[in-house]
Amino acid sequence: MEKLYIGVDVGGMSIKAALVNKQGEIIYKSTKKTNSLEGGPGVLLKDIKELMIEHIEYAKKSGDVVKGIGFGIPGVVNNENGTIDYACNLGVENVNLRDYLSELNLPIYLSNDANVACLGEERFGAAKEYDNVVLLTLGTGIGGGVVIDDKLFEGVEGKGAELGHTVIVVDGEPCACGRRGCFEAYASASALLRYTRQEMKRNHDSMMWDYCKGDIDNVDGLTSFECAKKGDVSANLVIDTYVKYLSEGVLNFCNIFRPQVILLGGGISNQDKYLIEKVKKYCADRNYGYKNTPVVEIRVASLKNDAGVIGAACLAMDGDKK
Amino acid sequence: MEKLYIGVDVGGMSIKAALVNKQGEIIYKSTKKTNSLEGGPGVLLKDIKELMIEHIEYAKKSGDVVKGIGFGIPGVVNNENGTIDYACNLGVENVNLRDYLSELNLPIYLSNDANVACLGEERFGAAKEYDNVVLLTLGTGIGGGVVIDDKLFEGVEGKGAELGHTVIVVDGEPCACGRRGCFEAYASASALLRYTRQEMKRNHDSMMWDYCKGDIDNVDGLTSFECAKKGDVSANLVIDTYVKYLSEGVLNFCNIFRPQVILLGGGISNQDKYLIEKVKKYCADRNYGYKNTPVVEIRVASLKNDAGVIGAACLAMDGDKK
Repeated sequence: MEKLYIGVDVGGMSIKAALVNKQGEIIYKSTKKTNSLEGGPGVLLKDIKELMIEHIEYAKKSGDVVKGIGFGIPGVVNNENGTIDYACNLGVENVNLRDYLSELNLPIYLSNDANVACLGEERFGAAKEYDNVVLLTLGTGIGGGVVIDDKLFEGVEGKGAELGHTVIVVDGEPCACGRRGCFEAYASASALLRYTRQEMKRNHDSMMWDYCKGDIDNVDGLTSFECAKKGDVSANLVIDTYVKYLSEGVLNFCNIFRPQVILLGGGISNQDKYLIEKVKKYCADRNYGYKNTPVVEIRVASLKNDAGVIGAACLAMDGDKK
Repeated sequence: MEKLYIGVDVGGMSIKAALVNKQGEIIYKSTKKTNSLEGGPGVLLKDIKELMIEHIEYAKKSGDVVKGIGFGIPGVVNNENGTIDYACNLGVENVNLRDYLSELNLPIYLSNDANVACLGEERFGAAKEYDNVVLLTLGTGIGGGVVIDDKLFEGVEGKGAELGHTVIVVDGEPCACGRRGCFEAYASASALLRYTRQEMKRNHDSMMWDYCKGDIDNVDGLTSFECAKKGDVSANLVIDTYVKYLSEGVLNFCNIFRPQVILLGGGISNQDKYLIEKVKKYCADRNYGYKNTPVVEIRVASLKNDAGVIGAACLAMDGDKK
């Protein structure tokens, strides 16, 4: 009989669940489409409960036992009372997930999705040899996760580690959070697309126009990288701009947390030579402190699509230790 | 017989030491002038050792016992090996304080001065009812301290929590750390003086000129506040500018740490109505997250000149528990 933990990655497109053992291995997993934007929060809760029962049954049949369930939520949670306060991509507001699942008789843990991804990477992914880790997921926005001394840092009610919502340009670009100049408005994948389009409008001879078949609506996260690789000057300018803002944020988190490693996640983090190496160089040139201050390592997150379920399962493992 | 802890606040002007009990009360204290800029690091070490022996003797005579010594250092330390890596105000570089004091046969703890001040305030000062606290000391620069779940957060080697060195204006004002646009370059007391002088040069009719007796070199931290209180429009503009940058940084640390309280220290933090109340309002209007996210409290640090010695003693108390 093995102790297992269910990790659930609740996303705007799908709800992914997995049975994970203490070694971070996925024993079983399954997925449901997220229907709550159309169907309302009741549909989401019902789908989650069905997935949980499926996983608990699977464990039972294998002679194993589920010790707890962890959730990664794309939004604001209250980890003390188990509520999803607000998750616009799920169409959910003020829903108590812990109460709803109480009949399962299992401890229920919630955290923000980037938080659990960071925990998963620290335990079983790109930072498994370290205990002090910051993760930045570069997507539509920027999610942040922080692990300190092998423990997830979440802030009061689990509402901290909102690393994307830190202003790096006072009075800068408007951000979805209501402030102006947030890191997320300058270093998310969406910001990269903005820089790409701006540069294309400035230079109609750029190779990026060919790449997009003449239609600026075809710009995606690869446009600038692919054309930069072919030597397009404009594309390289776009990437330099992006690297600068991303690195300024990375340096801020070096100075604030002085972790052992900062991980970058999200699709564009796979651009090793054209992104990660440039960020490393920018940061090494501007390392804070005296000559004895070590340069913080910068790496690409490695668990990819499994980071959410494995990290969420780690939440439950940590709860089980208490 | 009472257990006592020596807290040492090593400053550019003076070395303050105090015997502190577990209730945070100062039993005895004394001070030496800091002579290391002229005399070199050897003088600093000798003066510190003499102060320590004086305090240990005092405790012995009272029938008490010293269990450890904590230091607050104005610079970069390595808390693992007990070294002051670099402290320009002390003229000290790469000096191992722990080794030098080894013949005292007491555990020696080092941390950055703002870190220990935060720990002191959290235990015995303005945040004593809380466990999650961020402190910003507004002086020539900005020092930062962070306590998470009643434990000082320091980062690897004690080199984290450099909250003043986080860029809030990419490509902005140059900072002593080598980057541009740091929070410290926009919200330190020095930045307030810069805004004051800039506005005086713009408006020669401002009351601030009278306050400075016509000499811009007389500008100090009170100039704008005192004239604003008398209704001077220019002085109010200066304060509004300062409040904006200070508050943007405060909001960043709300989103990163989501503490229970953020404390502001340093001389200008005493301007309650003209500074703290304005910062509170600016931040409340821009609180991150959904309606359930609590507004972080903002308070003035209360231990004043004793924050350093009490906080440094707390370092030793925490070490004694391990």
